[in-house]
Amino acid sequence: MSKQEQELIELSQLSSVVGCGAPLAREPIPAEQAIDLSRAFKALGDPVRLRLVSLIASHDGGEACVCDLTAGFDLSGPTISHHLKVLREAGLISGERRGTWVYYRVEPAALARLSDVLAIEQGVRA
Amino acid sequence: MSKQEQELIELSQLSSVVGCGAPLAREPIPAEQAIDLSRAFKALGDPVRLRLVSLIASHDGGEACVCDLTAGFDLSGPTISHHLKVLREAGLISGERRGTWVYYRVEPAALARLSDVLAIEQGVRA
Repeated sequence: MSKQEQELIELSQLSSVVGCGAPLAREPIPAEQAIDLSRAFKALGDPVRLRLVSLIASHDGGEACVCDLTAGFDLSGPTISHHLKVLREAGLISGERRGTWVYYRVEPAALARLSDVLAIEQGVRA
Repeated sequence: MSKQEQELIELSQLSSVVGCGAPLAREPIPAEQAIDLSRAFKALGDPVRLRLVSLIASHDGGEACVCDLTAGFDLSGPTISHHLKVLREAGLISGERRGTWVYYRVEPAALARLSDVLAIEQGVRA
């Protein structure tokens, strides 16, 4: 094995450890990675869930409880909770119970991974 | 109105003209923008469509016809065409007929917009 081949293998192992995705324009996404990524994109494929992620991420201290989130929507508490569960199962947010409330935070690494996959090099931006 | 306020208004108008989205962690996404963005994320929320975008984007010359795309899938031509239509309607790819085939390209500005919305500042990446 050449030194270059060895380096390529090490790089690909490193990449799978940190969970970053190569931009989709660099090479075809493998089927398994596509299943994983598409689950996260599907979770964002709903306007309420996208707004919830944005509300949590932009909230003071980077966290928000359901009590902070319901005001912005004409939806019931259980409906908001359902959407939060979908986001949680997709790995985009995490929740921690403290007293009466569960406090939600976004998972920066998960959002960054999706952002990186869609990143198009500046030169080819329309 | 102060010069600073005037500049802020001009910046926000410019931003809406070029269609770029502020990162979702900066401020809550407005409802209308969430509808628009979530439509694009929903289109990517399917493993076949995500792989199609990647195959097109990474194909020689940045374009591919259905004839280039069917080989990688255990799916019928009409099914592939349906997925391409969904991606086209979401503004993520465009197609141009030349002779027998329609040639597809990704829309770099649309992908870059989604990438930018999800971009988390390096400092807060987990």
